[in-house]
Amino acid sequence: MSGNTFGQIFTVTTCGESHGKALACIIDNCPPGVEISEEMIQKDLDRRRPGSTRFGTPRNEADAVRIISGVFEGKTTGTPIGLLIENTSQRSQDYSEIMNSFRPGHADYTYFLKYGIRDYRGGGRASARETAMRVAAGAVAKAVLKDLFGVTVSGCVTAIGKISTDKYDPEVALNNPFNFADGSEATLMVLEQYLDEIRLSQDSCGAVIEARAQHVPVGTGSPVFGRLDATLALAMMSINAVKGVEIGDGFALAAMRGTEARDLMSHNGFSSNHSGGILGGIATGQDIKVRLAFKPTSSIMTPGASVDKNGNDIPNLVTKGRHDPCVGIRAVPIVEAMMALTILDAIMLDRAQCGSVDRESLFHIPV
Amino acid sequence: MSGNTFGQIFTVTTCGESHGKALACIIDNCPPGVEISEEMIQKDLDRRRPGSTRFGTPRNEADAVRIISGVFEGKTTGTPIGLLIENTSQRSQDYSEIMNSFRPGHADYTYFLKYGIRDYRGGGRASARETAMRVAAGAVAKAVLKDLFGVTVSGCVTAIGKISTDKYDPEVALNNPFNFADGSEATLMVLEQYLDEIRLSQDSCGAVIEARAQHVPVGTGSPVFGRLDATLALAMMSINAVKGVEIGDGFALAAMRGTEARDLMSHNGFSSNHSGGILGGIATGQDIKVRLAFKPTSSIMTPGASVDKNGNDIPNLVTKGRHDPCVGIRAVPIVEAMMALTILDAIMLDRAQCGSVDRESLFHIPV
Amino acid sequence: MSGNTFGQIFTVTTCGESHGKALACIIDNCPPGVEISEEMIQKDLDRRRPGSTRFGTPRNEADAVRIISGVFEGKTTGTPIGLLIENTSQRSQDYSEIMNSFRPGHADYTYFLKYGIRDYRGGGRASARETAMRVAAGAVAKAVLKDLFGVTVSGCVTAIGKISTDKYDPEVALNNPFNFADGSEATLMVLEQYLDEIRLSQDSCGAVIEARAQHVPVGTGSPVFGRLDATLALAMMSINAVKGVEIGDGFALAAMRGTEARDLMSHNGFSSNHSGGILGGIATGQDIKVRLAFKPTSSIMTPGASVDKNGNDIPNLVTKGRHDPCVGIRAVPIVEAMMALTILDAIMLDRAQCGSVDRESLFHIPV
Amino acid sequence: MSGNTFGQIFTVTTCGESHGKALACIIDNCPPGVEISEEMIQKDLDRRRPGSTRFGTPRNEADAVRIISGVFEGKTTGTPIGLLIENTSQRSQDYSEIMNSFRPGHADYTYFLKYGIRDYRGGGRASARETAMRVAAGAVAKAVLKDLFGVTVSGCVTAIGKISTDKYDPEVALNNPFNFADGSEATLMVLEQYLDEIRLSQDSCGAVIEARAQHVPVGTGSPVFGRLDATLALAMMSINAVKGVEIGDGFALAAMRGTEARDLMSHNGFSSNHSGGILGGIATGQDIKVRLAFKPTSSIMTPGASVDKNGNDIPNLVTKGRHDPCVGIRAVPIVEAMMALTILDAIMLDRAQCGSVDRESLFHIPV
Repeated sequence: MSGNTFGQIFTVTTCGESHGKALACIIDNCPPGVEISEEMIQKDLDRRRPGSTRFGTPRNEADAVRIISGVFEGKTTGTPIGLLIENTSQRSQDYSEIMNSFRPGHADYTYFLKYGIRDYRGGGRASARETAMRVAAGAVAKAVLKDLFGVTVSGCVTAIGKISTDKYDPEVALNNPFNFADGSEATLMVLEQYLDEIRLSQDSCGAVIEARAQHVPVGTGSPVFGRLDATLALAMMSINAVKGVEIGDGFALAAMRGTEARDLMSHNGFSSNHSGGILGGIATGQDIKVRLAFKPTSSIMTPGASVDKNGNDIPNLVTKGRHDPCVGIRAVPIVEAMMALTILDAIMLDRAQCGSVDRESLFHIPV
Repeated sequence: MSGNTFGQIFTVTTCGESHGKALACIIDNCPPGVEISEEMIQKDLDRRRPGSTRFGTPRNEADAVRIISGVFEGKTTGTPIGLLIENTSQRSQDYSEIMNSFRPGHADYTYFLKYGIRDYRGGGRASARETAMRVAAGAVAKAVLKDLFGVTVSGCVTAIGKISTDKYDPEVALNNPFNFADGSEATLMVLEQYLDEIRLSQDSCGAVIEARAQHVPVGTGSPVFGRLDATLALAMMSINAVKGVEIGDGFALAAMRGTEARDLMSHNGFSSNHSGGILGGIATGQDIKVRLAFKPTSSIMTPGASVDKNGNDIPNLVTKGRHDPCVGIRAVPIVEAMMALTILDAIMLDRAQCGSVDRESLFHIPV
Repeated sequence: MSGNTFGQIFTVTTCGESHGKALACIIDNCPPGVEISEEMIQKDLDRRRPGSTRFGTPRNEADAVRIISGVFEGKTTGTPIGLLIENTSQRSQDYSEIMNSFRPGHADYTYFLKYGIRDYRGGGRASARETAMRVAAGAVAKAVLKDLFGVTVSGCVTAIGKISTDKYDPEVALNNPFNFADGSEATLMVLEQYLDEIRLSQDSCGAVIEARAQHVPVGTGSPVFGRLDATLALAMMSINAVKGVEIGDGFALAAMRGTEARDLMSHNGFSSNHSGGILGGIATGQDIKVRLAFKPTSSIMTPGASVDKNGNDIPNLVTKGRHDPCVGIRAVPIVEAMMALTILDAIMLDRAQCGSVDRESLFHIPV
Repeated sequence: MSGNTFGQIFTVTTCGESHGKALACIIDNCPPGVEISEEMIQKDLDRRRPGSTRFGTPRNEADAVRIISGVFEGKTTGTPIGLLIENTSQRSQDYSEIMNSFRPGHADYTYFLKYGIRDYRGGGRASARETAMRVAAGAVAKAVLKDLFGVTVSGCVTAIGKISTDKYDPEVALNNPFNFADGSEATLMVLEQYLDEIRLSQDSCGAVIEARAQHVPVGTGSPVFGRLDATLALAMMSINAVKGVEIGDGFALAAMRGTEARDLMSHNGFSSNHSGGILGGIATGQDIKVRLAFKPTSSIMTPGASVDKNGNDIPNLVTKGRHDPCVGIRAVPIVEAMMALTILDAIMLDRAQCGSVDRESLFHIPV
């Protein structure tokens, strides 16, 4: 789980820069016999695609995915699945100004210092464009999860800047331009005004996304360093702009008492789900719940102080380009993808180790 | 980075149950030539050791560590370092009652469902006793970090239940029984009263710990799935009872604007550190900052509803044993250990890939 | 090092079937700043390419490689390098006959039993076509090895069926159609007659290849399970049709005495190299030497007994298609590639762990 | 699969030097519910133990193993299994002479150059004493293989120096002091004379071991880099003194024709097993066969030329100590252990990926 590969068994390896020739990904150890199609993957890619609403970047990429291997006659064969998206809309000229300077809040400076060389076009590898391949791989993972294990994942935006909701409703989120859990007319109007104001002031804002997985088999996950909550945290924090992760009630638990925080049990079920469906790193069978915080888009038109490669001050650097005022809005399918990848990998690892345990014969708490 | 091994190059593999014969750990790929001694490791173990204050569990383990390999004439040899702690205080009888029942908030149920068999004595492998080996391995990592790379890590408790502080002062934390960042007499009195009340009401509370690493070389960390913030999140969320992780300003960033959140730069330095010293997954050279939330101790004397292995309700299960009212208090050395392990591994991986980059010749922002 | 990924730090992940849409590979953790071009990679691919001589399969693939990421302005950037080869010559119709039957000596049966589904076109993933991507990745590794570490690798065929040589001369091998270490006219005539006879009798033969790496830094390699000879053995045995691997004098050592087998040392150098440049799994600085045995091509026109998917006997199955009578002949660049990948990975791992050891100050035996 | 950890899922991590305090090993991801005892492990350790016959080193270690974790009430719990062997017979004084010099054929030179520091006592980590932990871990793997999957592994010595046999009979091997496959009186007398002559001339000799696994499920193993023959080659070549590995007919295949080498099939079974039970990296269900070559013991009393740390020639270095004249003889349980570890790991990985394939319903060739 390092660098450009995610997962221990169901591994996803990606490559590709924002303005390079193409993005690609190779999925290894995919279970065989599962129906996969380019249409199925495209559907999730389209949810992430820029250009769909005026609240996203106007950059318009077709993001058309090709399956180049690992699928035969519509089914996975067990051999590695290659996915390819050619880059078609590459307005490299937008970025020539920042060739030698470092945009504040971006990875320009750290990439340059790390590698001594930097593909500055559109952020190169640091661009969120990289996440397209996560979504594509996630679509495959979702199909396997559903077909073989009955598991589903979903997500919605629950906060945009200072506007938040306690609701969780993926259906609603799918049907409004903010992917927001609360789709009431009043809320949508507030959000629209809020984001318009952000945009007009050449600024940006952060967001919170919540995601859930349902029907994850009890027993999924490994204790200690491989805790399911730990691998979920890695998965979520590996998404561009994410700076906080919570499982279940998260930080709120720190201020609770033990009597409030624990999830009591009876033969009828759990009385609550403060733990987010994970105890000791292992799934309880309840919904897995994760929340994550996105920082505001760093690319804003408001000038900011920076430096160039030679250490000269640039007091008013402007980050041009086509950018989302709130990157969190389009991130829901990315979050779902990372959740699907994490859980599928955990299920497969559990099957490797515990495939001979007869769980059917043991008492289960209904969920 | 799964199961009982942490790290990709500097790997730490641990074993041992709460009431088993011993705990052990094997550290692989440790750089050679670094001074290590049992005394050095013991010092950190003693900070975590139960029995030191009345705010911890009365269980008193000597936790005496033995180096069984990998160190010769006081220095690491590059071969794997074996560490061993024999278990000496094993009051197994305390736990016979819960042999067939599942304590709420604990991993009893999930372990049993996962493996079909469970070492119920003191929580077995799910016990926080396991973290002793993390602390021991972390002490080795700290020594390597300091000797070879000049990096230091530190931590303090910044919230206990509802009482929190904005301060960060590891020196102060080392010198009060709560490892709290604010050591003023008034605060300590409030904390004492608060915890006494918690204990008397047979309850427990959560906590927040903040940790920092200083002098982490710019360039440390990998982009995409190996982001330094992502591996830190995994490391932190893998600690028992942790349910939330933030890098830099974390969740607060979600409610900020881009103009507030970005860290501006000049030839004199960064103007702020909202990003927690990490941009694009790579260290900026600033302090790395992480905060984590501990849920309240699940083992409390207040009875709670549960079930047994056969699905019979146990309306009033009491969790006996010797337990901390707030597990976060003793967790500072564990957090430091996981931070040290994560950063050392990232530095070594960076050296593997980028060891030929002449960073000295590039402009650095002073930190 | 499993499935479709090779290496621990410098990792290569490949995908693609013989008659799928394309082959691809992603190289991760490549050191930055190294000059790489499609021409450079193509050169090695052309050495492996079918259709170049009448001693290879008449199948003619252009095998034109595209670099899709990780290289900017002619240099590696440290981000993952994507390589792509579109499949252009796909005579799938040749294979319709074996759709439901298992060719003897092939992986048809085992793939089908493993996955329950099989891309039968041209052997699918089991085809040696997969090795094109190893050669491409190996070309990148060779460039890094040479630029950053001064290491070179080479190979030649030293036996074709019953005809073998004690010579080792990569230059000679590059200049005859058999890649044979002995290029004397007499030998080439014997080989030609031998192979013509093999072909006319609708049969095939095995081969032996020897490969060497020069200037591998002393200290490269890890002891115990990561021995350099062990990872080389994995690398070599992972090549299609390879069934034996020797390091240094290999099996001949089993019949030697200690006084014959040991490589004595003086301040002037080693007196011999029976160990193949590796002691205790670590490079001595001498040439690394490896020999590997290829079994005869399984695809031959001579009918053989087999079965179909339903267990019906097929007494005289003929394997049509375009095949090499001796697969070893074209395998030299594949062997070199795997050797380069193995050694580069070991050098990078050594740098991670031992980068602070001042080897320059230690006595070296000249090599 | 690097450094001191073997395996991808069923992982074994070891530590310990020849004359350090103890050897230890941690087995992760062991399936739960399998009966394991110290006696069971000790039995295999005793087969490897020095001091049992006059054809082994006179060093007499009790090698008493302790299970320190992961086993509860006689069964594996799924948590990591810790094994510990304290070192009791440490005649360090024997080795003081070679503190600053490098024994020819040994890893002294390469360890020192790699790490810049060396535990010279008895070869430190490079000593074959390290293999005790492989045998212990292998005993656990054997138990799991037998209990859950019906797989057995065995091995015998098939050549000692120039004396070899075509036989394969593990039962016979268990009952003669050479672990030799041919136990006829005549052969044993020849071997005894041969080894006595070797010993009297203060020399040593190499050996060949053959090992087999039976009832390995068809489908076990991964193609491409994870080929079962490739991971077996890594496993075998990682054993001290091994310099050659063959699967099935190995090097002999290079001189065969395709018509001789291929294993024909009918509904009654395979007609032969030249491939050693592996096609395309995947088990056919036939016996897995592997042969490996051990070089002669490097530690011999016959003086040899060497150098010291400062580059001074030592024309007549004598390697004292207690050594086997033929290290291969005691290596059978080590080979079995590595085979068991490799196959179990492959079975578990196959279950992870292909656990939903209904192989029962597919036609199997009887074996």
